[in-house]
Amino acid sequence: MAELKNRRWLLAARPHGLIKESDFKWDESRTPALADGQVLVRNLAFSFDPTQRGWMSMDTYMPAIPLGEPMRAGAVGQVVESRRPGLAKGDLVQGLFGWEDYTVSAGEGIFGMQKLAPGTDPILALSLLGTTGLTAYFGTLAVGQPKSGDTFVVSGAAGATGSVAGMIAKLKGCRVVGIAGGPAKCEWLVKEAGFDAAIDYKNENVGAALTKHCPKGIDIYFDNVGGEILDLALARIANGARVILCGAISQYNETAGVAGHPPKNYFNLIFRGARMEGFLVFHFAQKYPQAVAELSQWYAEGKVKNQIDLQHGLESAPKTIIRLFTGANFGKQLLKLADPE
Amino acid sequence: MAELKNRRWLLAARPHGLIKESDFKWDESRTPALADGQVLVRNLAFSFDPTQRGWMSMDTYMPAIPLGEPMRAGAVGQVVESRRPGLAKGDLVQGLFGWEDYTVSAGEGIFGMQKLAPGTDPILALSLLGTTGLTAYFGTLAVGQPKSGDTFVVSGAAGATGSVAGMIAKLKGCRVVGIAGGPAKCEWLVKEAGFDAAIDYKNENVGAALTKHCPKGIDIYFDNVGGEILDLALARIANGARVILCGAISQYNETAGVAGHPPKNYFNLIFRGARMEGFLVFHFAQKYPQAVAELSQWYAEGKVKNQIDLQHGLESAPKTIIRLFTGANFGKQLLKLADPE
Repeated sequence: MAELKNRRWLLAARPHGLIKESDFKWDESRTPALADGQVLVRNLAFSFDPTQRGWMSMDTYMPAIPLGEPMRAGAVGQVVESRRPGLAKGDLVQGLFGWEDYTVSAGEGIFGMQKLAPGTDPILALSLLGTTGLTAYFGTLAVGQPKSGDTFVVSGAAGATGSVAGMIAKLKGCRVVGIAGGPAKCEWLVKEAGFDAAIDYKNENVGAALTKHCPKGIDIYFDNVGGEILDLALARIANGARVILCGAISQYNETAGVAGHPPKNYFNLIFRGARMEGFLVFHFAQKYPQAVAELSQWYAEGKVKNQIDLQHGLESAPKTIIRLFTGANFGKQLLKLADPE
Repeated sequence: MAELKNRRWLLAARPHGLIKESDFKWDESRTPALADGQVLVRNLAFSFDPTQRGWMSMDTYMPAIPLGEPMRAGAVGQVVESRRPGLAKGDLVQGLFGWEDYTVSAGEGIFGMQKLAPGTDPILALSLLGTTGLTAYFGTLAVGQPKSGDTFVVSGAAGATGSVAGMIAKLKGCRVVGIAGGPAKCEWLVKEAGFDAAIDYKNENVGAALTKHCPKGIDIYFDNVGGEILDLALARIANGARVILCGAISQYNETAGVAGHPPKNYFNLIFRGARMEGFLVFHFAQKYPQAVAELSQWYAEGKVKNQIDLQHGLESAPKTIIRLFTGANFGKQLLKLADPE
């Protein structure tokens, strides 16, 4: 097959503070000839996730992205050429690809690929039925263990994971309070997502509002933001509370990282006989099929909505990741390159 | 009954930094006449516990000790006069009494009393078979959930709770590493208490020693000290680790309290799918009889030792509590006033 023009965004610099467009470098090259075992994938849509800030910076639960290599992203693509058994031209695949038109993959290690069923919607696969929705599912159910009547608080509540977490908690009979930025998101949480209350951290005193909306204390706190809000929640946990550590987006762009504002009120875990528990969605990989089936059913029944924030075109990738950290996104942040053929 | 002379230590000041002898005021008064429902208890022995620093300072899980009132302590005493049904002269009782020769108690609220079996050893009742041993028991077994082969690390390892926690973990098949201050304590941990290794935080680099003694990471960390050592342990937890929050004695005398050195590495709980869980022994009150029975059996069989540090005389009470926070004590810190009659 002839070489194809391949536009790419390479990682040019490790971010310092907020991610900048200049942390990426535009590049145009040609696709290489495939070796045995490789496939050439045309990227259709990219997922944007707070954890990418970590991949850009340092080795974490996976190696850092090397400088000069394409920016790594969760993506759905379509096979255009295959020298790999089990994958054929036209197949839809999901995995960690790059910010580029075409990715060559041997499907090894962290770059393992999943073949998607024909007709799968790439947008849904990267949001509610992808890592985002699965993170909300396992964090809320497996880590949080909600009981009917529990008071469930989630931060980053209008975000991709937070909104789904709150809706799942609501399905399980919890009283659900979301913390989000701005009146539009808060209104959406209560009117569309079915939350019992929303707290606008940009315009309200979060501590006072938590005290008001959680008169019996917080039974489950799903933390996406870390920092001061984690501390305000820890100060208000009920006996036997579960604090689900999912992320700390308020801290990722701080030069001191999460160490800049560690949880001063952790000691309240002792007084309340409570626990703070972290997880990565990959820890639950063996249970993905069951979770996807249940999320699909809830979505079909209208019990869980899939709020997405869709941007367009490879050129827009750097601007789009920055939306995540400024809070400009409303729902799952995605970028679409093309429809499947 | 005639009034008796009653020597007392009253709380004179809320501590600032390390507890000082001048935080207490010596007082001599007379015992009052009893009202219906009250008993007069002669105090035989006092327990000294890090949590008393909190009671002296502020309302926590129980109200702060009022200034001008006797210092509150876990104690065993003997009834000398009773106007309370179910308690008679000569009965041994355990509860929260005061640093004084005689305490008048109505056994209400936090001052509820337990009647002890005749012949009970007050020293054993205040150490291995009291709050100290029960804290180690429930923290290690119920919160930590040890499995054979787990690497179990405990700080404050030569202290009352830490030493018992390590010995219980050893009984459950764990590899046990203790952190303590000074070569004498470390030698005792390995030679007498049966620990696999000991780290002398006063003379060793704790981080490097943890890395050396825990090559597969830490499966369970029983934290009695908080501060920097908690952070060093969090940095080395294994997948699925349990961090048992029992105390933070390194921080109680800091003017900023536990907020002065919160756990910067808490975020590693996410990468490791691990949890940090607090508890108060009172949360397990319904299971005390079973725990006391099991601890008694292990003690009788020589599987768990009861290391105590016994001081004498009411006059010595302030000096004795200070021993806890300077690390001078070796094992459970107790003060004996008298033998039962």
